[in-house]
Amino acid sequence: MDWTGEIAAARARIAGHARVTPIARLNLGGFDVEVKLEQMQHTGSFKARGAFNTLLSVEVPAAGVVAASGGNHGAAVAFAAARLGFPAHVFVPEVAGAAKIALIERAGATCHVVPGLYADALERARAHEAETGAMQVHAYDAVPTVAGQGTCFAEWDDQGLQADTMLVAVGGGGLIAGALAWWGGRRRVVAVEPERSRALHAALEAGAPVDVEVGGVAANALGARRIGSICFDLARDMDSMTVPDDAITRAQRMLWQEARMLVEPAGACALAALLCGAYVPDADERVAVLICGANPAPDPLAAF
Amino acid sequence: MDWTGEIAAARARIAGHARVTPIARLNLGGFDVEVKLEQMQHTGSFKARGAFNTLLSVEVPAAGVVAASGGNHGAAVAFAAARLGFPAHVFVPEVAGAAKIALIERAGATCHVVPGLYADALERARAHEAETGAMQVHAYDAVPTVAGQGTCFAEWDDQGLQADTMLVAVGGGGLIAGALAWWGGRRRVVAVEPERSRALHAALEAGAPVDVEVGGVAANALGARRIGSICFDLARDMDSMTVPDDAITRAQRMLWQEARMLVEPAGACALAALLCGAYVPDADERVAVLICGANPAPDPLAAF
Repeated sequence: MDWTGEIAAARARIAGHARVTPIARLNLGGFDVEVKLEQMQHTGSFKARGAFNTLLSVEVPAAGVVAASGGNHGAAVAFAAARLGFPAHVFVPEVAGAAKIALIERAGATCHVVPGLYADALERARAHEAETGAMQVHAYDAVPTVAGQGTCFAEWDDQGLQADTMLVAVGGGGLIAGALAWWGGRRRVVAVEPERSRALHAALEAGAPVDVEVGGVAANALGARRIGSICFDLARDMDSMTVPDDAITRAQRMLWQEARMLVEPAGACALAALLCGAYVPDADERVAVLICGANPAPDPLAAF
Repeated sequence: MDWTGEIAAARARIAGHARVTPIARLNLGGFDVEVKLEQMQHTGSFKARGAFNTLLSVEVPAAGVVAASGGNHGAAVAFAAARLGFPAHVFVPEVAGAAKIALIERAGATCHVVPGLYADALERARAHEAETGAMQVHAYDAVPTVAGQGTCFAEWDDQGLQADTMLVAVGGGGLIAGALAWWGGRRRVVAVEPERSRALHAALEAGAPVDVEVGGVAANALGARRIGSICFDLARDMDSMTVPDDAITRAQRMLWQEARMLVEPAGACALAALLCGAYVPDADERVAVLICGANPAPDPLAAF
């Protein structure tokens, strides 16, 4: 696979549709880190990149598009479809929560809430695809999705990224696959997962993708039952670690209290590895953290 | 006054103490705007710039520093004093609210809550100054404060600001005085105040600073009873407009819903002028908006 070419093509395709998100240097918990505020992407997560790249790289059928999602991917597909003029149906598990469901509906899709977890929503989305001929937009395990997410890191390079090491939160693996695909070893990429949603970590231990139980504070964003095969192929030799939920919550609080970034648990997961000591950089190692999502529950606007 | 020299000196002084805050280009409500995320400054507003510049440009007495504040300036003085090793007393009016009071205390100051409005807190701060010999750090009407706030715009120039026109929210006038002092006519600066906290607008109408009644959603940040004299001298010929509270609240909601910036009402005031039509740019006019503060009430972390 020519990932460099795929990601370069994706960048050209989504230019003017996805946002160029800002970067900053911060000292958080005693660590100097470069951050990219990808939570400022349309619909509040990096997912809009993959969604636009997918919808712009194929001929979309009259039945439109369909997606299964813990919430963020569904909102991104809904947004991209609405901007490009396609109907969209999004299937979410109950765990997505009211705030993300409202976000998907506001973005313009028909949202179907499915009992169970992400895998159950995916089953329903596949049934809809079979019945209607709508195009399935996979949340993480498809080349246009991974190439779209990879544009985030290509863009960061152009913005002057210095880091030796990039910490990335992992759910189904689309985002980190994008990082690995773009850099191909030129920078160190470290995977961070919640202890209770550890699909990549379990796959690396087992030597192949395996099913895991999912739960915890970041489940609606990082709770994939099985790591994507594209991610697994790219990730075979990588550093992977897990962090407990309370470390994620502490990182989430710090991002607000120290830098006024209000994010969801998944958006704080990568930083948590640094703050809780799960990842210990060398003295002269330059570290970057992607802030990947900010669709917390409850909606903070509900309070004022 | 050599404002260019004062602001350049302030930049050198506060480097490494105040943050370089990120910038972005966004389309909000149909307007392409450059924004600077100054709400990511230490303690959540631009005030840390003036506080550090003041404390680093004089010899601070043993009794430390004292400030009167609607909240944001007090938090900034508390933070700068704690970082530099000085004791700090901050007097706030009740309207500051629990979240800002907690912020000031977390930053390390002794916080005194005073019945009434900002002017009442200022009176008590002056009494404390007289009794103890502590150094008064004025929230807006002092040269080191204005020069410190001016660094925000000097920094933005270096970050590649393109705008013809800069919209800035006005309370006591320290921030906009910094903009006017730095640019001196090289860019157009437009003042935006809440209808119910219009100290600059009233002064420009009257031809001199006059007392106004203050109230409304942004009162604890923009509710100065009288515009600062430094600001007034710099602002005599400028464009000034007011916006209703509901336009501020709509802009605040849009910043969250469209770009995941959770700000306080004051932080959305300048954008409100654009969104509600109070300021109508020409077709080819490039507009920038400073996002100046993000200490909303209630504290959004209270919800999760």
